[in-house]
Formats: sequence, structure tokens, C-alpha cells
Amino acid sequence: MFERRDHEDDAMVIFQPHGRRGSFKKGTSILDAAKELGVDISSVCGGRGLCGKCKVKIVKGSDYLSPADPSELKFLTKEEIEAGYRLACCAKIFAPCEVLVLVPERSRVGKQRLQTEGFEVPVMRFNPAVRKYFIEMSPPTLENATFDDEMVIKALAQHYNLLDVDFHYEVLRFLPKVLRDSNWKITVTVWKNTIIDVEPGDTTNRCFGFACDIGSTKLAGFLMDLNTGKVLSVAARMNPQISYGEDILTRLTYVLLNGWKGLEDLQKAVVNGINEMIEECCEKAGVKPEEIYETVFVGNTAMMMYFLKIWPEFVAKSPFQPPRMGGVNLPAREAGIKCHPRANLYFLDTIGGWVGADNVANMIVTKLFDSEKLGMCIDVGTNTEIGIGCKATGVWYSSCASGPAFEGMMIKYGMRAADGAIEKIAIDPETLEPSYRVIGDTKPVGICGSGIVDIMAELFKSGIIDWSGRFNKELAERTRRIRLGPDGWEYVIAWKEETASGEHDIVFTQKDVREIQKAKAAIHAVASILCKLHNVTEKDINVLYVVGAFGNYIDPESARTIGMYPEVPIDRIKFVGNSAGTGARMALISVDEREYITKAIKEGRIRHFEIAAYPKFNDEYVSSMYLPHKDLKRFPETIELIIRLGTHPEIKRALELKA
Amino acid sequence: MFERRDHEDDAMVIFQPHGRRGSFKKGTSILDAAKELGVDISSVCGGRGLCGKCKVKIVKGSDYLSPADPSELKFLTKEEIEAGYRLACCAKIFAPCEVLVLVPERSRVGKQRLQTEGFEVPVMRFNPAVRKYFIEMSPPTLENATFDDEMVIKALAQHYNLLDVDFHYEVLRFLPKVLRDSNWKITVTVWKNTIIDVEPGDTTNRCFGFACDIGSTKLAGFLMDLNTGKVLSVAARMNPQISYGEDILTRLTYVLLNGWKGLEDLQKAVVNGINEMIEECCEKAGVKPEEIYETVFVGNTAMMMYFLKIWPEFVAKSPFQPPRMGGVNLPAREAGIKCHPRANLYFLDTIGGWVGADNVANMIVTKLFDSEKLGMCIDVGTNTEIGIGCKATGVWYSSCASGPAFEGMMIKYGMRAADGAIEKIAIDPETLEPSYRVIGDTKPVGICGSGIVDIMAELFKSGIIDWSGRFNKELAERTRRIRLGPDGWEYVIAWKEETASGEHDIVFTQKDVREIQKAKAAIHAVASILCKLHNVTEKDINVLYVVGAFGNYIDPESARTIGMYPEVPIDRIKFVGNSAGTGARMALISVDEREYITKAIKEGRIRHFEIAAYPKFNDEYVSSMYLPHKDLKRFPETIELIIRLGTHPEIKRALELKA
Repeated sequence: MFERRDHEDDAMVIFQPHGRRGSFKKGTSILDAAKELGVDISSVCGGRGLCGKCKVKIVKGSDYLSPADPSELKFLTKEEIEAGYRLACCAKIFAPCEVLVLVPERSRVGKQRLQTEGFEVPVMRFNPAVRKYFIEMSPPTLENATFDDEMVIKALAQHYNLLDVDFHYEVLRFLPKVLRDSNWKITVTVWKNTIIDVEPGDTTNRCFGFACDIGSTKLAGFLMDLNTGKVLSVAARMNPQISYGEDILTRLTYVLLNGWKGLEDLQKAVVNGINEMIEECCEKAGVKPEEIYETVFVGNTAMMMYFLKIWPEFVAKSPFQPPRMGGVNLPAREAGIKCHPRANLYFLDTIGGWVGADNVANMIVTKLFDSEKLGMCIDVGTNTEIGIGCKATGVWYSSCASGPAFEGMMIKYGMRAADGAIEKIAIDPETLEPSYRVIGDTKPVGICGSGIVDIMAELFKSGIIDWSGRFNKELAERTRRIRLGPDGWEYVIAWKEETASGEHDIVFTQKDVREIQKAKAAIHAVASILCKLHNVTEKDINVLYVVGAFGNYIDPESARTIGMYPEVPIDRIKFVGNSAGTGARMALISVDEREYITKAIKEGRIRHFEIAAYPKFNDEYVSSMYLPHKDLKRFPETIELIIRLGTHPEIKRALELKA
Repeated sequence: MFERRDHEDDAMVIFQPHGRRGSFKKGTSILDAAKELGVDISSVCGGRGLCGKCKVKIVKGSDYLSPADPSELKFLTKEEIEAGYRLACCAKIFAPCEVLVLVPERSRVGKQRLQTEGFEVPVMRFNPAVRKYFIEMSPPTLENATFDDEMVIKALAQHYNLLDVDFHYEVLRFLPKVLRDSNWKITVTVWKNTIIDVEPGDTTNRCFGFACDIGSTKLAGFLMDLNTGKVLSVAARMNPQISYGEDILTRLTYVLLNGWKGLEDLQKAVVNGINEMIEECCEKAGVKPEEIYETVFVGNTAMMMYFLKIWPEFVAKSPFQPPRMGGVNLPAREAGIKCHPRANLYFLDTIGGWVGADNVANMIVTKLFDSEKLGMCIDVGTNTEIGIGCKATGVWYSSCASGPAFEGMMIKYGMRAADGAIEKIAIDPETLEPSYRVIGDTKPVGICGSGIVDIMAELFKSGIIDWSGRFNKELAERTRRIRLGPDGWEYVIAWKEETASGEHDIVFTQKDVREIQKAKAAIHAVASILCKLHNVTEKDINVLYVVGAFGNYIDPESARTIGMYPEVPIDRIKFVGNSAGTGARMALISVDEREYITKAIKEGRIRHFEIAAYPKFNDEYVSSMYLPHKDLKRFPETIELIIRLGTHPEIKRALELKA
């Protein structure tokens, strides 16, 4: 960390959490200082104060920056203002001194769209199920001959204090040969209490495992070294089951139409993807698949059933009872996985309904059920799972079909997150002009999930849609971007000349708005109901864990503004990333973690609530359709900003009526 | 039991153990009385007092029978005379009274040559590893829905107090369907703690198991009802591995020449035979193979390795260390056995060297290692295994290659026990004429194992061969049955006109005698050495268990006379029959028996002694070549009879020299 104050008049700017610092002249914006130091701060509009995405928190030295003016403040909620947030592009150095700037995660741009990442959480105890032991024995003589297997078992007890181990019967077959070929110096591979391999010589450093998150859409795989607990390589694939159906219910239909053969097809499809990932990971890391001695899998209930070939029909029918509560151990080869012939496969537990092992993995990472303070865990996708609770209350989990809208389905120009997808967007409330960023920095092709959430928030904040989600036709007078199209009113994000194909404008339509309203209403309704079950409100939620690859890219502020997330202080929103994958990895290297979570579920500390059993779901749903919510008191920060922006007279009137 | 004394002068004769009784006139022989009452007593010569095979013990009333004369006494040893034995054909009712006659097992003729039988021994506790439970549950509702598997596990705990059970993963696949198709009334099949099946409705009475003895030559299979512990049907086959080699070492050579493929060939061969037996047993009993939920196997170490495909090479090389001590559990389907898809296969423990699970089974039946008094257990075959010991000393086991002579191999007209085989034979010491019985009562084809042992004894007792095994040429003057043939001196058992083929006389040659001398010498040497290890002599042996199908048919008196068995009092020789099969059945219906024997072996209470490690084996062997033994003091009863018969002047001289 260098100190470089060139001039007496310069200020020292220090960026956290990076730790980078530098000396800058008066008049330099924080955003420019960051660029100079290589600190990445998101900016969609190019630093022109139009998108509001470059928010930073001034921890120290706010008095030495230019004061915020209304054009900046319109992007900041009251709490943010009180907490010292500024737009980095607008906050300029005013006087020499030290300025300490915290760049929150959501303002960072540099995240790659690898759904494989997640934050690292240490396991309670490093304790993989597989271990290797090297033993050297003296060849038997006529005087002391006993049995090949007994010699090995005794040596393990004597040198490593391993008791109650026994051989997998297959290993007995070649044990006599390996012992003599190796001159009685062998490496024994033990899974729990079973000897699953013997090899000549010392191979103890070659002990690997594979953790995998089977998402409905994406697979993520991690090759790990079971001696060190480190990730050696990662891989990702689209879930090949997509060719049998985009979502889990379409795939279920495929099974119902094709019986056990259909279930086999689904299983073979996903196993192909998994094995490709294994090969890729092994290639990258210089590991052979036969050196993978255990595989751990997570996925929702449907993924579990399609993978283990469990008849899935009844989870989709009332009372939606899943087949299996606890984790499942089986020989990996029985599932067709490419790894050691006697490797174990462990699929984590199920919480209930469609809330499955992927959320169990989330619980391993967040340990919400052990938390002193109330928290919420949300995994947004085609199905969204939400868990709310803490140690005192236990955690209740529910899920809803938020629909594929966040994946880009059902949205006119919706698409998956790939090159050409608009991933971030802001609309200037005055000019109603958009600024956006495209994945891959190419010309835009369409808009992906995070961009969709953004545009909903921006359309709302700027008043283009009212709180019921209806386009304000009057604003058509202010810009030709608001117009009547073939599907109703629409907002033009990009004129066709700007786009990649050049064939059509990229718009967001009234129908698109309704789709997102429905999706976010389902999610919010579930969150509300879970709070009611706990006799708490959103105000009591201390931390909101956003898990899942998708959640990583959704701007939490946008999600909050439209009423998808409850109004939890932004500071308390934690991005966990692909915590399903993280949890799978933790379970792989720690049997303690597996047992601990199984125990928590068995003891009822993590439970499922069947939303369909809640009589007032529809009421909650309808109220949640509003932006942000029919009950405005539930989103005070957002409403305060809206009022300040002056873009929603109908809201102002509603409040005045209530008062 | 009827009392029918027709005449005051009649005697009441009661036969034990049958309990049959009847009233008979003076002058009736015990043999005729027996025939009248349907009590079977062996007679080879047709009641003419020529074969000595109809021995019975007069428990009460010996004074009321005709006195024994020398022509009868020449068949009885001193101890037999003292114990009250008579030839049933010679002992005639003399006076009215009650006569109680005990017919010892060896004098009974009615035994079928099914090697499947063995005596029944109650298990320490009826405790099969598989049990079925019928449970009725209420369908879940939205209010109380949990998990399919949890409902079953809870119901088992609640209604049957079964704790810590879990599902085999495969059962989870169809569990949801079975539950709903059956309206939540199912039968759960549990093996130890694992649920291996669920079926609609109540099938609890359909629970079966299969026990099997894999002999080198013969397979024996038993289908059992695991609810009752009863045998439902039995089957037998020649071991198909014979086509790869007559004996275990020839088969080993096949493996060494053909590698793992060779081992697979052997395994497939025996499994074919086993599955045929299963089909036959199932057909006879009206059971489906899929209703067999566990299979238990025994066999010697070679049979174990060829069946489980364990590399067998090194058991045949010094220090002869076997691969596996304890029992082996594996999925039966992995061995290709035709039964329930998730049935377990249990192969019993190994004692050491070639002494394997078949002798472990013998120990389950005889519990020699728990016996207060010293005992011996002998299993005669191509390999003979002998165990000697008691509770205080533990049991030592050894084996020797007695060779296939007892199977009829290497004997000129030797054959396996089948129709046409001479199975019992006696030679009148005066006329030197034979009486014999043929299996199937057909014309003779050859002579089988029991007949071979008999003829050795008879040739010896009658003096046709001397104690060194050499033919006495002088006796050729007394009968043309003793003559010089192409292979040296020989005794004609049957003239060609009497035989089935009519093409050649059936003879027993000098070479044949040598073969049997070698075979019995190996056996007796092993027994001697084991006694020496224990610091005991044959006199201390309280009971001799003759196990194995073959041993059932050998006349123990003949075996003792030639010095194959040690001179244990005839009363104390117990026929256990196919105790390997019995022990396998006991292990099948009682896990306690499995654990108890494993514990005994692990604690060293049943141990193996490697005969090859005994330096003086050759000395013992050579001494044991003599008939009955070089050291005459070891066979006092036999010698006393020989002296009384006056057929061995060389022995008489040897004794006088010693005195």
C-alpha cells in the first residue's frame, strides 16, 4: 500500500475493502480516483450521473467532498443518505485530507458470470469421508501366517488407531496380489469404515472428491483435493435435461408420459453433463477420474428425484409429500458417475416440497438455524425458495414458482445471461433516457434477468409505470421512447440502430411488466407469509442472504424498490453466490457438516411450509402485485425516495388520504 | 406302540430308537423280528452270519437270547462284546421276556444317499437377518404431510419397535408408487437394519432364504422358510467346476493359466449349478426365486475364493496364508445368484489354509470349542479336514490331501456312489467269500468309497493282506479269488457273470490297497499330530464327529480297523451327516450363530495348524501306512480281534517280540 501525496493540496483517498490508496487533486471524482487505482466501481452511464449505479459509502472524510445536490440525491434512499452513501461520479474531492471509501459489493463491476463462485466458509471440522493410509508390513512366515485381510486391518489399527474397519468385498479379490506385488507396502483407501481400495506403494497424496450442484438450468462442478480441502478446478454446463423440458414440471410431464424409461432418460442426460464436467475438471487439474473417491450432490427435490430415479409424480400433487427426508448414500457407479469404481455418492437431504438439497446446502453455508438474529435466505430462479428464521424460531422454508421470467422467458426481448444481454440499466427520471451495460460489451441483443429487475425498478422510479404497473400514457409526450406497440404500451430501451441485429428496437412492454409483477408478487407473498408464521415483520429481518448464481447479479436495490425483496437495509443484504455449490463442497470435506445439517432437519429446526396450505395466499399475492406493495408502509425507504422524486402523484395522494 | 403278546411263551422285543415292539416266538432271530416290525437293520449277507453288519446292542434281556458262539464273536471287538453287542441275525429269542434292542445308526440300511441330510441342531436363538413387517398408515394430508420414507420409518418404530432402520436407495425409487397404489398398507422387508423391499398389502408369510454347501464335488442346497426356520425343499448337484478340474488344485491351475477370466469361468460354472438348485427348490416348494431374501454359503477356502472371485494363487504356496478371515457379506446379485435383487449373500468365515467355511459350519453344529470334553471332528473327502479340541484347549484344525481315492479315483474299479456301486462288503474269514450290497440293488459296476473302506478292513481282518498292506500269496491256495492279475495281486469281489457289464471281474488290486493306505495314512497322521499339539492321545478323545456326506456312509468300524479313524469307542462316534449344510442353515436362520462363531475364531478358540510346518509329518505318515498302525498299542481293540481271529501271525509275532 503506497502513499503518494504529490501535493499539499491533494487528498488521500483510500478504498476498502481493496486497500488501494492514492493521492488526488482537488476536483477529482471518487469514480475517477477509483479508475486510476484500478478499483472497480460499476458505472452504466459512464460517470455522467445518470444511472445511479456507482454508489459508495464515505466512511471518513465526507466533509471534504463536494456536497450532494438533488440530481445526485434522487438516486439515494433516505437511509443511504443517512448512512453516508454518495454517487462516486458526483462526489468530488473538495479539500486536502484523508477520505475512506467503502465500495459495496453491488457496486462492483468485475464479477464474471461464473455461477460457480460462492464465498468461502470454513467447515466446522475438516473431516472428509475418504482417507488414505500408507502401511508397510513384514511378509508372513510359516510361523506367523494369519490372513491377508487381518494383517491389513491390524496394521491400520496399530499405526493409525483405526478401529472397526472392514473390506469392501471387491477389494478382497485383488488384495492378495497387491500385497505380494508391492512387497507388503500398500496404500489403503478408507471411506468411513470401509476399505474401498488397496494400491501398491504410497499414493496417499492422490485423494480427490467431486462436489456438484445440479441446477434445473445449470450444473456446477468442483474437483477438490481431499487432503487439503482445496478446490483444484471447476466446470459448468447447461443441464442436458433441458432437451426434455425447460423446467422441472415439463420434465415431470415427460416422465409421466414415458414411465420409468422417461426417468432413465432424464437421469442419463444429467449424468452425461456431470461426467463431462468431471472429465474437464480432471483434465485441468491433472487428476484421473478413478482418483475421485467420493462425490457429493445437491439440487432441488425434482433434480434429486430425476437424478436418483425416484418416481417423482406425487411431489407435484397435494399434499406434495416428497419421497425422502435424509441424505442418500449409494455407489456412484450405480448412478453412472465416472469416478473410482467404489466411490460413494452422497445426495444431501430434502427440506420439503420442492425445497431440496440445494437449500440444505445453503443452510450449511449460512447456518441460519443457528443464528442469534432473524434472517432470510432467498434463492431466486424459475422456482424461488425462501427460508426465514433463526435459532430461537427455527427456519421455515417455502417455495413458489416465480416462473421463468427472470430467465428471460415470457419477456419479449428476454434472454439468458450471455454476450449481448443488457444486464444493468438505469433511466434518468428527468430525461427518461436509459443508460445500460451489455454483457461482453457488445451491441445489445436482449435483456437478461438482472437487467429485467433493473428496468422494472427504473420504469417505476421514473414514473413511467405507476404503482399498479400500468404505463403512464401521459409520459409519451415527454419522450418517443414511450409508445404504443403491437403488444400494448412499451418503453424503447435501444433503438434498432444500436442493437446487434439492427432489425428491431429492443423494448420492454406492458405484458413484460405484468410478467415480472406476477413473478415478484409470488416471491414477496411467500416471504410475507413466512414472516407471519414467525410473528415477525420484514423490519425484524436482520440479514438477507441472497443465494444462487442469479441472485448475485440482481441489483438488490432494484429488487427492493419493486417490492421483490422485503425492505431490508441494503447493508444487511449479503451475496452468497452459488452457496448450493459451496455447501456441497463443505459437505464433501466434512462429514460433520453432513451430520449436523441432517440432525437439524430431523429435529425440526429447518422445516418446510406448504404455501398451498395457507388460505390467504391469494390476498398476499394480490397485495404484492403492486409496486412496491399495496401496503405502502412496508416500504418506507422506497416510498420516501419516490415522494422525493415526485414521480408518483397517485402514491402521494394515497398517503395523504391515509393520513 | 402296540403290545401284542400272542403266546405266553413269546418274548416282547422292543427296538430303540424306533420304539417299535412286538411279540415273537422262541427261536426268532432279532433280525427277523426287526424285519417283521419294519425296523431296518443292515444285512449284506442276507442274515447268514457272514458279513457282521447287523450289529445291535442288547440293552436289556441278553440273558433271554441264544448265547453268542465264536462264529458270531469273530465279528465283535472286545469292547463291543463287553458292551452287549450281538449280530442280530445270530441272536435268537430263547425265553419269554422283554428284550430291549438298540439299533445303532451304522447298522441301519434305510439312509438314502442324499448328501443333503444332516442331524438337526437347534440354534441358540431363532434370529434370521431378514424379517417382514406389515404396516398400515393413514394417507398424509396438507396439514400433516412429511416424507414418504419418514412415515414408513416411524411406523416401523411405533408398531414394531424397530429403531435405526434406513432404506436401501433402490427402494426409494418405487416407494412413492407402492405407498399410494396400496393405499398406504405395505409390507416392509428388512435385512439387518436396511429396508430392502416394500410391497403392497401383507406378504409377511412369504419370506424365504437359501443355504448352500459348495463342496468341491457336490453342491447341496436348502430352501428355508424364514418365518418358521423349516426346510421347505432341498436339491443337489455335481459342482459344475469339475469340468475345469476334478479337484481344487487342478482348478487352481486353470486359474493360473487363464487369469481373471479363468476365475470368472469357475465362478460362473458353480453359480449355474447353484441357480439350478434354487430353481428346483423353488419349484418344489411353490416359492419364487425373488422371494429369497438371503443366501448363506459355506465351502472350503478354495470354493470360497472361486465363488467370490478372490485371487487364489497364494493359499497354495508357503506360507499358505488365506486372503480373508471373517465372513463376507455382499449383494447376492453381484455373484449372479438368482434371488431377490437386493438379497444379501453371506459366506462364512475361514479357519486357515484350506480349512474354510464348511468346517466353520461344522463348528456351528458341533460347538466343539465349547465342549467340556475333548472331541474330534473329521470330514473325509479328497481333502480331509480334522479338528481336535474342547473348551479348555480351543480347537486346532488341519487338513491334508487324502486324495480322490475315496471318491473312487485311482482305484481300478472305483466309482462314485451311484447305482451299481458296491457300498458295503464283508469277507468271511474262513471261506474268504464276500457278501456285498450294491446301491440300487442292481448288478455291480464298481466299488464306491464306503465299499472301498470296507474291503480294506475286510481284506485285512481276513488276513488276505498283512499289516504292511501286502497280499498274502499263500492264501491263493484257499480260494481262486486271490490271484495274480495284470496289476499285481488282486482279490475278486465279483465274477464277471455277476456284474452289470458282464465283461470283466470286479477286483481290488494291490495298487488299490496302496492308494488307500496312502490316503488313510495322511488322515491318521494329521489326527495324531493334532493330538500331540494338545498333549493328548486318542484315548482322550471323547467323541468323534464324522461330518460330511461321505463320512455318513463309511462304516466307522472299518475305518477304525484299517487305522483311518483313531480307536475311539464305537459308541462315541457320532454321524453328523452333511453338517456343513446344517451349519449353513443354522447361520441362515440365526445371526447369533454367525456372530458367535466369528467371535470364537477371532478370539483364537478355533485355529488352524499348518501341517507343512510340522517337521515330523513324514514319520507319522509312514507309521500310519501300516494297518492299522505301526504302533500296535494304539489300536488295542482291533488287535485283540485280529489275534482272536488268528489271521495275522506276523502281528502275533510282533507282539510276542515286544513282550
